[in-house]
Amino acid sequence: MINVVLLGAGNVASHLTTVFLDSQGINLVQVYNRSISTIEHLAEQTAITNHLSQLKDADIYIIAISDNHITELEAKLYLNNKLVVHTSGSVTMSELKRNTNIGVFYPLQSFSKDKNVDFSTIPLCIESNDKSSFFLLDKLANLITDKVYHINSEQRKSIHLAAVFVNNFVNHMYQIGNEVCTTNNVPFEILQPLIQETAQKIMSLSPIEAQTGPAKRNDTKTIDKHLAMLTSNQQEIYTLLTKNIYKTHGKKL
Amino acid sequence: MINVVLLGAGNVASHLTTVFLDSQGINLVQVYNRSISTIEHLAEQTAITNHLSQLKDADIYIIAISDNHITELEAKLYLNNKLVVHTSGSVTMSELKRNTNIGVFYPLQSFSKDKNVDFSTIPLCIESNDKSSFFLLDKLANLITDKVYHINSEQRKSIHLAAVFVNNFVNHMYQIGNEVCTTNNVPFEILQPLIQETAQKIMSLSPIEAQTGPAKRNDTKTIDKHLAMLTSNQQEIYTLLTKNIYKTHGKKL
Repeated sequence: MINVVLLGAGNVASHLTTVFLDSQGINLVQVYNRSISTIEHLAEQTAITNHLSQLKDADIYIIAISDNHITELEAKLYLNNKLVVHTSGSVTMSELKRNTNIGVFYPLQSFSKDKNVDFSTIPLCIESNDKSSFFLLDKLANLITDKVYHINSEQRKSIHLAAVFVNNFVNHMYQIGNEVCTTNNVPFEILQPLIQETAQKIMSLSPIEAQTGPAKRNDTKTIDKHLAMLTSNQQEIYTLLTKNIYKTHGKKL
Repeated sequence: MINVVLLGAGNVASHLTTVFLDSQGINLVQVYNRSISTIEHLAEQTAITNHLSQLKDADIYIIAISDNHITELEAKLYLNNKLVVHTSGSVTMSELKRNTNIGVFYPLQSFSKDKNVDFSTIPLCIESNDKSSFFLLDKLANLITDKVYHINSEQRKSIHLAAVFVNNFVNHMYQIGNEVCTTNNVPFEILQPLIQETAQKIMSLSPIEAQTGPAKRNDTKTIDKHLAMLTSNQQEIYTLLTKNIYKTHGKKL
């Protein structure tokens, strides 16, 4: 049985709370959050606290709070011979300076509070500064997913960056598609099969192979018609991405 | 039985050829292409030709060639009392000037030659300039998909434009994600669950609700770290999209 204390109540923390409470082999000893009201609903399932001085004994302390506050919280957290990890994609392991046994437990997925996820399909990127801590972290990760990757801090930063493109920026492309539909009285749902197929395609083709569209073909007639239909913000994005797709495919506009 | 002649041999044409040959109720009478070698493999299943003067008799003639050449081909194609349609998202119906019975048969999907698609899930946007032609086109569409939409030329243009964002530009985001992974010795496959989840999420949440990431949070520390890891092309895209996500969510950088 691995005893875990979780610090945080955001998207990642709340999904980890759920999966830890559901997993055999994991004992969620306590959840900490600065604001107690956010975690009060957990009081029947685990201990809760808003005082760092009242943290219970555990094997692993998982800091799942926003990137900007990790080092600040960890500096107040001295846990002799306990493993302290964070869940961030963009913070290096060495930014955990106060404790000796440190690591990273980064689930590579986009979490929304309102949407359940199947943790068993989520890649977990783990890292630690010593062998026995790594062994423990690896054991914890394997209790909740089949996809455990040993990823160092440099690699993890690049994964987090790539994730901004394939998740945050992709979603923003959906957003602009939605805006264009709304402006022209077309139901956004008509685009759903295309959105799903575009994501599916990338399972069997590389993005280079999967690329289609007026930018790749340098179909300037279509490109000009499109630009005329867009707001100035949208035009700026359309122009830059079109130029870059064309460059990627080996020609110059 | 609806008799169809298909003109073209590109991605859309070859997928339509496959689905027409497979569909009961549709007789693919002939396939035309300027270069006969591209369609020679079809010779056992249907008539083929590279001469417009040798087109066979049919109910519907479907021009499935690149947008820039549709009007040029149609101008050479005078088919009295026959229905002539194109398959383009960005060409208006009225650009078919030579014939009297005209229409559009636009499958809203991204086709790659190497990847099969299930046509029954693909939205078909149809339009015609008279009732009986529309009835015929509607019948043809319903023989290959459950999702038939009556969409006029203005609406179709906006759908095609929205599709550029949710398909072509999304795929380019995958491409940049792939570049970042390759540069940093990380397997692109690690991003697959995130890519699929990002697309799935949009089935139940609006893009505004689904948005996450450093741009939305205005997490400037992370944004600066990311910029330092990118090439100048990638930086330009990252900066513009970050700015626009932040604007969309109601604040100014």
